Amino acid sequence: MVFEIRRFRESDWVEVWSVLEPVFRAGETYAFSPVISEAEAHYAWIEAPRQAYVATEPHGPLLGTYFIKENQPGLGSHVCNCGYVVSQRVRGRGVATEMCLHSQRTAVGLGFVAMQYNLVVSTNTGAIRLWKRLGFAVVGTLPKAFKSRSRGPVDALVMYKQLPADDRR
Amino acid sequence: MVFEIRRFRESDWVEVWSVLEPVFRAGETYAFSPVISEAEAHYAWIEAPRQAYVATEPHGPLLGTYFIKENQPGLGSHVCNCGYVVSQRVRGRGVATEMCLHSQRTAVGLGFVAMQYNLVVSTNTGAIRLWKRLGFAVVGTLPKAFKSRSRGPVDALVMYKQLPADDRR
Repeated sequence: MVFEIRRFRESDWVEVWSVLEPVFRAGETYAFSPVISEAEAHYAWIEAPRQAYVATEPHGPLLGTYFIKENQPGLGSHVCNCGYVVSQRVRGRGVATEMCLHSQRTAVGLGFVAMQYNLVVSTNTGAIRLWKRLGFAVVGTLPKAFKSRSRGPVDALVMYKQLPADDRR
Repeated sequence: MVFEIRRFRESDWVEVWSVLEPVFRAGETYAFSPVISEAEAHYAWIEAPRQAYVATEPHGPLLGTYFIKENQPGLGSHVCNCGYVVSQRVRGRGVATEMCLHSQRTAVGLGFVAMQYNLVVSTNTGAIRLWKRLGFAVVGTLPKAFKSRSRGPVDALVMYKQLPADDRR
């Protein structure tokens, strides 16, 4: 599948929200409240992060989106955090892989030296397998830290990857 | 040492800041920028959290302070996060222990079922020993996730404790 990943523009929001909303409402993979408002989602995904990106086909619909932000302030701000959502129409076609690789390059370009996922739901086995293949290690397990809408309390993982230095800097 | 732990009042702020400021400026235990402003610190310690507390001697000076907040939104909001700072004048006299125990009771009363510390600096061995004694487990290690002002990048720990249910509820 040929697609490009580029910076989010405000005119993308309607499509971004249409991709995010069913995932947040489902309550299986992201901690955001299943009844989050569109404005709260816009703040969390677009305003609060450092940058947001979209994956699109040329002249086609939105395939996915990710954000990147500092995971901690000040003395922890060299470690970034990202979130990714792929449109339900195109699951399993490599969009998450490409967004994750893109986000790692973005992170290095922004000066981050590591990437941390704080709450990877243990039942989200496809994502865990993918992040491992892309170089992330499970560095911790948080007992029952996520309340899955369908299963109730389940464990969540902390995953982490140290990034290569940016040779261009 | 006889002291009480009670809810923060806005009139406590000058003393709270005098306890927080040297710890944040030192840059050895908290990720907050060492050049954080007083207003930013007030936001982070008082406004953003769910509640803040102070430890004081009767008619005496402030001994310490802690905050409690949700560690994640929505489906992760049953896990809380706390931060504690003890006045440098009274280190080693049990104030941190009492604040941690108090915060666990506060957490249970607020309905939290677990407490998570996201970034315990690995060189802060006194704190790690104390949290372990108070029931916390090291559930993860984040390689070089904290930039100590004196030592540069050092590991940080994720610590976690599942709390007993509140029988009164």
